[in-house]
Amino acid sequence: MVAPAKKPYRVVGSRPVRPDGTDKVTGRANYGADIRLPGMLYGRVLRSPHAHARIVRIDAAKALALPGVKAVITQADFPAAEDAITDLGETASNLKWLVDNVLASDRALYHGHAVAALAATDPHVAEDALALIEVEYEELPPVLSVHEAMAEGAPRVHPNMHTVEMLARFSPGPRSEHDIPNAASHLRLEIGDLDQGFAEAEVVIEREYETGTAHQGYIEPHNGTALWNESGELTVWLSTQGPFMMRDQLARVLKLPVSKIRVIPMEIGGGFGGKIPVYMEPMAAVLSKKTGRPVKMIMQRDEVLFGTGPTSATYVRVKLGAKRDGTLTAAEAYLAYEAGAYPGSPVGAGGMCMFSPYSVPNQRADCYDVIVNKPKVSAYRAPGAPAGSFAMESTLDELAEQLDIDPLELRQRNAAVDGTRRIDGAAFQSIGNEAVMRAAAESPHWNSELQGENRGRGIAMGYWGNGGLESSAYATVNRDGTVGLVLGSVDIGGQRAALAMQIAETLGIDYEQVKPIVVDTDSIGFTAVTGGSRTTFATGWAVHEAGLEIRRELEARAARIWEVDASLVHYDDDGVIRGPEDRSFTFREIAGQLHRTGGTVQGKADVMPEGTGPAFACHIVDVEVDPDTAKVEVLRYTAIQDVGTAIHPDYVEGQIQGGAVQGIGMALTEEYVYDDQGRLRNASLLDYRMPTTLDVPQIDTILVEEPNPGHPYGVRGVGEVPIVPPLAAVANAIHQATGVRTRRLPASPRVLLEELLPEE
Amino acid sequence: MVAPAKKPYRVVGSRPVRPDGTDKVTGRANYGADIRLPGMLYGRVLRSPHAHARIVRIDAAKALALPGVKAVITQADFPAAEDAITDLGETASNLKWLVDNVLASDRALYHGHAVAALAATDPHVAEDALALIEVEYEELPPVLSVHEAMAEGAPRVHPNMHTVEMLARFSPGPRSEHDIPNAASHLRLEIGDLDQGFAEAEVVIEREYETGTAHQGYIEPHNGTALWNESGELTVWLSTQGPFMMRDQLARVLKLPVSKIRVIPMEIGGGFGGKIPVYMEPMAAVLSKKTGRPVKMIMQRDEVLFGTGPTSATYVRVKLGAKRDGTLTAAEAYLAYEAGAYPGSPVGAGGMCMFSPYSVPNQRADCYDVIVNKPKVSAYRAPGAPAGSFAMESTLDELAEQLDIDPLELRQRNAAVDGTRRIDGAAFQSIGNEAVMRAAAESPHWNSELQGENRGRGIAMGYWGNGGLESSAYATVNRDGTVGLVLGSVDIGGQRAALAMQIAETLGIDYEQVKPIVVDTDSIGFTAVTGGSRTTFATGWAVHEAGLEIRRELEARAARIWEVDASLVHYDDDGVIRGPEDRSFTFREIAGQLHRTGGTVQGKADVMPEGTGPAFACHIVDVEVDPDTAKVEVLRYTAIQDVGTAIHPDYVEGQIQGGAVQGIGMALTEEYVYDDQGRLRNASLLDYRMPTTLDVPQIDTILVEEPNPGHPYGVRGVGEVPIVPPLAAVANAIHQATGVRTRRLPASPRVLLEELLPEE
Repeated sequence: MVAPAKKPYRVVGSRPVRPDGTDKVTGRANYGADIRLPGMLYGRVLRSPHAHARIVRIDAAKALALPGVKAVITQADFPAAEDAITDLGETASNLKWLVDNVLASDRALYHGHAVAALAATDPHVAEDALALIEVEYEELPPVLSVHEAMAEGAPRVHPNMHTVEMLARFSPGPRSEHDIPNAASHLRLEIGDLDQGFAEAEVVIEREYETGTAHQGYIEPHNGTALWNESGELTVWLSTQGPFMMRDQLARVLKLPVSKIRVIPMEIGGGFGGKIPVYMEPMAAVLSKKTGRPVKMIMQRDEVLFGTGPTSATYVRVKLGAKRDGTLTAAEAYLAYEAGAYPGSPVGAGGMCMFSPYSVPNQRADCYDVIVNKPKVSAYRAPGAPAGSFAMESTLDELAEQLDIDPLELRQRNAAVDGTRRIDGAAFQSIGNEAVMRAAAESPHWNSELQGENRGRGIAMGYWGNGGLESSAYATVNRDGTVGLVLGSVDIGGQRAALAMQIAETLGIDYEQVKPIVVDTDSIGFTAVTGGSRTTFATGWAVHEAGLEIRRELEARAARIWEVDASLVHYDDDGVIRGPEDRSFTFREIAGQLHRTGGTVQGKADVMPEGTGPAFACHIVDVEVDPDTAKVEVLRYTAIQDVGTAIHPDYVEGQIQGGAVQGIGMALTEEYVYDDQGRLRNASLLDYRMPTTLDVPQIDTILVEEPNPGHPYGVRGVGEVPIVPPLAAVANAIHQATGVRTRRLPASPRVLLEELLPEE
Repeated sequence: MVAPAKKPYRVVGSRPVRPDGTDKVTGRANYGADIRLPGMLYGRVLRSPHAHARIVRIDAAKALALPGVKAVITQADFPAAEDAITDLGETASNLKWLVDNVLASDRALYHGHAVAALAATDPHVAEDALALIEVEYEELPPVLSVHEAMAEGAPRVHPNMHTVEMLARFSPGPRSEHDIPNAASHLRLEIGDLDQGFAEAEVVIEREYETGTAHQGYIEPHNGTALWNESGELTVWLSTQGPFMMRDQLARVLKLPVSKIRVIPMEIGGGFGGKIPVYMEPMAAVLSKKTGRPVKMIMQRDEVLFGTGPTSATYVRVKLGAKRDGTLTAAEAYLAYEAGAYPGSPVGAGGMCMFSPYSVPNQRADCYDVIVNKPKVSAYRAPGAPAGSFAMESTLDELAEQLDIDPLELRQRNAAVDGTRRIDGAAFQSIGNEAVMRAAAESPHWNSELQGENRGRGIAMGYWGNGGLESSAYATVNRDGTVGLVLGSVDIGGQRAALAMQIAETLGIDYEQVKPIVVDTDSIGFTAVTGGSRTTFATGWAVHEAGLEIRRELEARAARIWEVDASLVHYDDDGVIRGPEDRSFTFREIAGQLHRTGGTVQGKADVMPEGTGPAFACHIVDVEVDPDTAKVEVLRYTAIQDVGTAIHPDYVEGQIQGGAVQGIGMALTEEYVYDDQGRLRNASLLDYRMPTTLDVPQIDTILVEEPNPGHPYGVRGVGEVPIVPPLAAVANAIHQATGVRTRRLPASPRVLLEELLPEE
């Protein structure tokens, strides 16, 4: 279902075939694994079997003696290792942490932490050689949860680390007066007067929640092939969401200027935020430098789970104050998110997002970024927001029950509207929050009756701010009336199509006339990561600007051909250039004349737009809980979302469906399982259980299109927010089905069964 | 020796290291032969053993039955084959000729003409399979020289072809009233009144000359790998001077819009004009379409000589009229150049260039493009000019002898100057012709005494017009103060360096701050071929314009940062942006601030410049001729040339040295040897004798720098003209050494010995 677009667009809002589709389904698309270079070596990584251990000694002699093994490296081989900043009182951008996470220095800080890497002429030789690297460890006690970590007297993972007070989400301040063990930072977000808010409340409710560690579960493992040539230039082929971010990180770790590094993004088989940090790419580079040959590294599946960044396991406490009519007067949260071995959890986003769908005059969130002996977390779709919202939306549900108010009605009574202040003090503008709630209230799903035993319906809201950041675009006009569109935004979820559509709209030409291409970091201007729900928004803006430049240049060209003043020529939105005396050119016509009238025409733009449009979502889910096995079956699911203008509704729906399913996975089945030694026991996709098509029904979507006035085509960004509501929606549905409040997710049968059968 | 540049440049005129140098000398640069794609097949071509034969039948059944063979194609498999224009009364752009030269239709027109191609899983299987394709030929009489071809009653290679009168060099007119067998076209170039010119003459001299077929002799064979995907898009990796020209030709042969084709130029191991036409690339594409797999084709060395375009063998007759004081009053030429099997010899350029160093009021050149049963000729460095100039400059030498005037003095007396009209009627502007002659007259070489037996000194002039055409450029600013420079001009002779230097000059930054990259046809705007001595000129202009745009954008950015009006900010030529109150930014400083002040900055330009600056050269050579073996040894060689501004003098000198050596090869050793059946008998680099470093001395160069006022940095273009003078210079030197006028080149020992020992 799509609400009509606000403007009659020609291309925007249609559903054309994606340019990369055929190559991807026929296996012709080139991924990192397809790279083969002359003389190429194969690299592998040796990983720590311990969650926390001192590395006493690494002896690679036997490995190096194996025929075919060309080099072994440890962290000492990194150019940045020797002068990495050792003062740990800094933020996640600390170079030492970046380097240490790639390859451990003197301590392994999590099970699977890379401690050495090697390159050999054959992948099997490389695998065999791993076992020949001798590492002597001295085991140390691991810290495995925020509770353990923050307890008084807890062993400190980074002995010199002190809690930092954050001035804002990305702005570290001074050392905190309240140092807490292993808490890298504390961020307080606050508006209004919390005490007064609770004083005004007639009902107060406080609850605690926990979520497990979930991995993004992209199907394509990390990979990287590096060639460091004799003149000191490094080329890296890899799978990433952000080629320029990879270039920046490589530059820091390898101590190279960015211009010495060319990052060539191959097709990407999923990222969801997890394909932004460097892992083996710097190792491949250093192995290439050592050997003088290209080195290819591909993670095994278990290495992806062991060694890359999942999302945080979390602990969140929520306290709400409300009037009896449901009006919220105060909202307080305490959030402690696992950062893994190095700082950088998305706890601030958790605190930022959880209350945002609501107008609450008095809010506070205390956010703690907590070090534990687990992999350093990475971004994962609306990073940090699902856990916070799980807490808020579950508590709201309980409040609605207490107050005997329909849970959607309660949300509507408190809905944030234009002008409502968020917890960071900013006021919303042109948001579709109420429209989303209204669409939910009017939806067939919400108005249907749920029949049958052990069944329940849950509802929850979600919020994500969406990103802006920097994008470049470059476009050229071909003589056959097509436009080459050169992009730095890698295509994960249909970006080629969504961007081609926007420039086609700007130029008044058909989508099929635009040929988008994603290029490397040497071939396009700086472009930030594909993520944060920013690409269709910001790169879309860049392609629009490039299109406008082409319009201007073609007007000038037409004026020259017609020998009239340029002011008399106008490029109309239908792609026709009109001049005096009924003269006109279609785009194809003038494109065919360019080579004869002064040469080709190009457009380019670099933008760093403000005006991002926040996204709100409401999900409704029906579940049935098997009373004997506690298996939760999702019967029906509807996701309602304000998507701004839906450039390509298929991909918008796909993003929503994918996000919802990932949220269902977090709610029901996905979790890292550690033993008491901190060893990850389910590092395979058989044991780490993501939902498959057999586990979820069709996810119905309702697109609410409130165009973002801050974007030429009203784009908001759609990819993140759909992962936010499912956790609470499913938990609320389970409660309705069973009477049990699941405050720890995933609500796996094992956990849920304990709740269902408490007396046994 | 370098005359001082006219302007004190910072970067232009220096000699930095080329960016691609290390990769090329360490073997890391990627050439077409390095491509390996998953599932790749290997293609080979079956070639005609006959110079002229009807193809009665092709039976590929046995080849297809060989395990591993996946497809066999003939011309019928080309999309354009069925509707290729069959009226041969057209020009060289005729589609049928283009298609027929790639794969023969019903007749093979030269020894080595491709008649079928196949693809197999292994190159050895592909080779074996060639022998299993059965072709039944009916031999036809070949036509092997312009004399045979144009003789009355000669067999017509293209039975329906009629001579076309050219209106101008590239402008075909109507069918000629004087149809000549196998003459595809006749072009008359004329100024003044020839009869009057000869009437005014006190001396008239008329001579005939011939040159053999010479190949460009690039070391890297042609190669092409094609992947035609299921959605109808074709990607081709290849070695070419003009990716966009390859795209255009592929589009025509394969009947695809250009936007469906992505041409990825790999590094190129030499071209000299020969890597512009398509050969196996369309075959690889069709084989890929048939098999659904990538197909790689690399020519064997003999296939390069058999199947690609060398330059024309020629016949030129020159008649000069002069006063006794040497003043030329009339110059007439008849030129008949072999086109090979399809029209398109550079005979017009021969007629255009041969008289251009001189002011002759009355000139005429009749130029015939003649079909013979040999490979279709291709461009080869100053295409067509060497043969015409050989004739003119030899005749001038003889005239000087007759008139007892120093040969250089004779040339100086007649030197074309600013305002002199060329044979096409245009008047020269700002040429360095006289300066070149003067530099020659003043050169150490010319002023040295040549001592010893059997030695002689020759001198000759050369002219080339240089090219303009279309180029694009795109440049981005990196935060480390470097500039990414994206180019569509492939780098044959140092273009990356010469272009990086120009934008560095424009931006006032160091050469090392520019990182040039050559990209594919999807990633940059249309850019014409690297050839015609146009690249440093036209693409140089484009990068300059792109640099100017960056300057303007950085001025605007600085104004925004300083919060002052943009009119108060100025980007100075030293790369410093200055504003009011002594505020300033270096390029590096502002580059480092871009991401924090609104994002990156880019520049782009597309140009189609006029104002090309003609090139003149004077070569002086000393030879010694062994009286017993007639082997000619080149003792000393000096090339003087007006190069305009020498952007990178090393590469200018390299171009001159390379061109001179190729001209020496044409003069002394290089020639296709055919038997009387038209079979090429020396299709290897052992038997086709190019000069090696053992055969030539150091080529001394004298760069005369008369900046071209039609270019921002005064560039003229340097690559072509140095191949023009050597033929006559060497022949004139041989005459001085031996008394023998060699009017047929190459002056191989076999030929020369007959002249030296006529009585035996």
